[in-house]
Amino acid sequence: MMAAQLSELEEAIETLVKNYDKYASKGFCRRKRGINKGSFQKMLSQELHHMLTDTENKQAVDQMRQSCDKNQDGLIGFEEYWHLMGTIANSLLFTMEELEENAEK
Amino acid sequence: MMAAQLSELEEAIETLVKNYDKYASKGFCRRKRGINKGSFQKMLSQELHHMLTDTENKQAVDQMRQSCDKNQDGLIGFEEYWHLMGTIANSLLFTMEELEENAEK
Repeated sequence: MMAAQLSELEEAIETLVKNYDKYASKGFCRRKRGINKGSFQKMLSQELHHMLTDTENKQAVDQMRQSCDKNQDGLIGFEEYWHLMGTIANSLLFTMEELEENAEK
Repeated sequence: MMAAQLSELEEAIETLVKNYDKYASKGFCRRKRGINKGSFQKMLSQELHHMLTDTENKQAVDQMRQSCDKNQDGLIGFEEYWHLMGTIANSLLFTMEELEENAEK
């Protein structure tokens, strides 16, 4: 769908977008699209179980879903999804920096 | 650095984090880290030239950098970087949805 030979970074962005598209429920009204409760649980346990803990704990997952659902419409929209991915990415960066610092000591 | 066999989504998140780490300048004070003007231009032209236009136009790139630099400290910090990636991802999602809609017609 895009010109061939995307960079590694562009491919990564595309992967994140396609993952959202995979789990978001479709509707005629584009604004209403988002990831519902069941799909959110599925996504966490299938795609994020190395980076997150408790992905099989339905209560923990639902608490996370509720804290992601800023506008409380019961769906995780794209902005809310991107924010969650950013939180995970930020923890990963922190871990990388800690490792780098320790390696320098 | 993480347990082996990350999912495709987790690998994509890692790629985005590593890309930030590649272009961000390092300092003793972790809070001061971020992508400076020169590195920002390099990153756009080397990693994002299929998804963004005008990546070789220094003036256009600098305008984009200034609009990303919300706290105006001259550096694109991780949150600002993640927000920019989200804007690109959002456009990509929009394009994908348009294509899907047109395919259904």
